[in-house]
Amino acid sequence: MSTVEASRADDPAFALHVGGKMEIASTVPLEGADDLSLAYTPGVARVCEAIAAEPGLADDYTWRANTVAVITDGTAVLGLGDIGPAAALPVMEGKAVLFKAFGGVDALPICLDTTDADEIVETVVRLAPSFGGINLEDISSPRCFDIEERLKDRLDIPVFHDDQHGTAVVVLAALGNALRVIGRDLRDARVVISGAGAAGVAVSRILLAAGVRDLAVLDRKGIVTSRRDDLTPVKSALARDTADVTGRQGGVTDALAGAEVLIGVSGGQIPEEAVASMAPDSIVFALANPNPEVHPDVARRHARVVATGRSDYPNQINNVLAFPGIFRGALDARASAITEGMKLAAASALAELVAAECTEDRVIPSPFDPRVGPAVAEAVAEAARKDEVARR
Amino acid sequence: MSTVEASRADDPAFALHVGGKMEIASTVPLEGADDLSLAYTPGVARVCEAIAAEPGLADDYTWRANTVAVITDGTAVLGLGDIGPAAALPVMEGKAVLFKAFGGVDALPICLDTTDADEIVETVVRLAPSFGGINLEDISSPRCFDIEERLKDRLDIPVFHDDQHGTAVVVLAALGNALRVIGRDLRDARVVISGAGAAGVAVSRILLAAGVRDLAVLDRKGIVTSRRDDLTPVKSALARDTADVTGRQGGVTDALAGAEVLIGVSGGQIPEEAVASMAPDSIVFALANPNPEVHPDVARRHARVVATGRSDYPNQINNVLAFPGIFRGALDARASAITEGMKLAAASALAELVAAECTEDRVIPSPFDPRVGPAVAEAVAEAARKDEVARR
Repeated sequence: MSTVEASRADDPAFALHVGGKMEIASTVPLEGADDLSLAYTPGVARVCEAIAAEPGLADDYTWRANTVAVITDGTAVLGLGDIGPAAALPVMEGKAVLFKAFGGVDALPICLDTTDADEIVETVVRLAPSFGGINLEDISSPRCFDIEERLKDRLDIPVFHDDQHGTAVVVLAALGNALRVIGRDLRDARVVISGAGAAGVAVSRILLAAGVRDLAVLDRKGIVTSRRDDLTPVKSALARDTADVTGRQGGVTDALAGAEVLIGVSGGQIPEEAVASMAPDSIVFALANPNPEVHPDVARRHARVVATGRSDYPNQINNVLAFPGIFRGALDARASAITEGMKLAAASALAELVAAECTEDRVIPSPFDPRVGPAVAEAVAEAARKDEVARR
Repeated sequence: MSTVEASRADDPAFALHVGGKMEIASTVPLEGADDLSLAYTPGVARVCEAIAAEPGLADDYTWRANTVAVITDGTAVLGLGDIGPAAALPVMEGKAVLFKAFGGVDALPICLDTTDADEIVETVVRLAPSFGGINLEDISSPRCFDIEERLKDRLDIPVFHDDQHGTAVVVLAALGNALRVIGRDLRDARVVISGAGAAGVAVSRILLAAGVRDLAVLDRKGIVTSRRDDLTPVKSALARDTADVTGRQGGVTDALAGAEVLIGVSGGQIPEEAVASMAPDSIVFALANPNPEVHPDVARRHARVVATGRSDYPNQINNVLAFPGIFRGALDARASAITEGMKLAAASALAELVAAECTEDRVIPSPFDPRVGPAVAEAVAEAARKDEVARR
């Protein structure tokens, strides 16, 4: 036995993964010829004919309206990077079982053997007739922005890149409550986001939409501002709505001095001195997992509210708080898209669950709080109707 | 309520199909943070890293090795024809639940929004990393031949067009036993196949491989022979191995006069006089469903063994006798392909289950005979090892 095999044998994660984490189950009886003649030929032919005549009936008489494709190309898996489609499959299966457990959504893991944006878009468009929604996952930045936008244009079912918007929804919810704890408001807080990838861009966008006015976004080269000449189109657009407005420039130290809020979604380390230079009663969300940008014990020396992606510290910012309920609500409303309004509604519903009793150590509900999925779903479905993207 | 809606309300097939016929189920516990830390982050990352280092481990630590994509473009659904991908979904779901019930295989229905052969091939190649096998379904002829061949070349997992090979396996099994009942042998029977589409071509090919020497294939214009100038490449190749060998030509009447076996896989009607002109103790398989080429009551006036695709007559030729066990066996052996040897082994195993006690009314087991799936799977896995396509 090699060292790797030995470490596998001792690791409960490998034991749990033997044979995978999910299966298909029938929801209809198949005990005899009569059952078969309804679920399959000849009975099924009448259902097919009805759908051929009225395509929308596929939402009533197939599993499609409850089904989401979890699609990746394996290029940005967790913190592991570009590990390819086969190695990404355990994460997609994990996502699928969370979709079912927390949202009652049937999700299918699909790992694509291409990293070409055009090919990904074409492939997903061709798969779409079998699905009620598309959850993009672990596709690297900046390709993910373009792929998501093009799919939203082409399809009339929800398309949602969870690394962007799931993270953004949970961060907004937690930040709202954290600001409540320190007695501040989104509109007059100075916020710094470390990381301008999928999550950083989406968190920036939702915070701007929620009313944040003083926002600086950092990438590896410092504050993202139009004074720089190395920006991608996505970062240029972001610069115009953030640092260009406030005139801020410089590096992490410049950005953090006096700021109330730091949101780390980069994986890069942030020095303790920079955190120490923040405003009194500051808020630090260090979300890289498993190694936060600032260790939570260090952050707590300087900040009043600290959140991480880890389950072994208070205030776990976990996407599972968002994506199952968001898709549950979108599917329940048979939404044709997931709008900004639906994301903001999801964040509000999530924040609301602990708003009345929120403290430094409880700015966001636990993923196992049974109220989470239903509350998010209801708010999202209602917002879908308000935004006129609901089909029922 | 419209007439259509009223007929739907009265039809148990529609009642059964509300919400679809299948769902995803988790096979791992998700009760608390500890479970989540194994099934999802951080534990899952170690499994991903192991697969990234050794890709074959995806077969051990994901559901892939037990998973088959059921793929259609909706162009030849049952007898309904080109009804499109959404209307095909109930059939693909039906197939998926049969895969699970009769083979323990997790099958995912995927209906493609393209009918272009190149696009179908590219799409399936891109999906392949998530699957242990590909079951093509209800793709029209002759495109289906080309699509299957190209996918077999491109992929190292089993690719199987069930309308072709599933039908062929069950027909061969039933025909072997039917010939036993009338005391004849495959090698000296005169066989006529009515239909030169997906099923007709595949049945022809498996019968030739099994030893049939006198075979005539009919399409709408008569016997498929190289004397005709209207043949597709697939039919030309078939002509060379069938009518060109025997010199037969003409129409259905010419073909059937004195023949021992008629296998109808066309849906076209065959006149009673032609059936009456067959040899004494003839065999008629009229497999179009729900309307056989010759009504079984009519066929019984002239033939000694009659089989149909219907569950309300003896000798039901149903693909469910083959595909679940064939894929079960191929997946168990982690086969890289489904070889001719594996198909022949499946047919033998199926025939063998009733060979000792076969009669006119029992040339094939019932789909609900619990021995069927395991017997076919075992024979197929063994043949995969013999043909050196097994990876375990």
